[in-house]
Amino acid sequence: MHSPPTRNDEDRVRLSAVLEFVGRRWIGAILLGLGHGPTRFGEIQRQAPGLSARMLTVRLRELEAAGLVERAVEPTMPVTVRYRLTQQGEDLLRSLQGLADYGRRWGLPAG
Amino acid sequence: MHSPPTRNDEDRVRLSAVLEFVGRRWIGAILLGLGHGPTRFGEIQRQAPGLSARMLTVRLRELEAAGLVERAVEPTMPVTVRYRLTQQGEDLLRSLQGLADYGRRWGLPAG
Repeated sequence: MHSPPTRNDEDRVRLSAVLEFVGRRWIGAILLGLGHGPTRFGEIQRQAPGLSARMLTVRLRELEAAGLVERAVEPTMPVTVRYRLTQQGEDLLRSLQGLADYGRRWGLPAG
Repeated sequence: MHSPPTRNDEDRVRLSAVLEFVGRRWIGAILLGLGHGPTRFGEIQRQAPGLSARMLTVRLRELEAAGLVERAVEPTMPVTVRYRLTQQGEDLLRSLQGLADYGRRWGLPAG
């Protein structure tokens, strides 16, 4: 049996909180949708079939409040808004690699 | 910008599904509670303050249905039931290492 990923209670509380945040419906899909650099609202939505504009707006606000996503506003007429991962957001996306590999090995979770 | 953890749409669907499963309230805490080997119901609950017996029962059933946890029944009088991670469950727990390290670097998610 390998040693669990957490060393103490504080670790466990943090991991559980991170899991419950990143596990919120659509958060994973949106982070992945931003994985290739600054992306417009419509393009994020296009990459996540079933994601409504209302839900994407709510989740982007949560991701911005969590310091994971920021807006890049270009001074075109009208302005162009793109969303991009912050350094912390990129770190979180990289941290999902283990779970992406797990998903490749075992497929969609049953139950 | 590092390459995102997923290579194609199938990967993205799987990762989103894994995240939404492992992000369900208490699933992470229960997996961690089983990280040291076969564990009794009460001991899992003790390690996750706030987790009710009813919710633990529901989540254990989901984890068993997903092939991540199994029961070990010892023929004592009365019988002793312990829950343990299957090979797939251990693999999932190991796959959380990246997120545990992320949690250590950035702390509890805001927002």
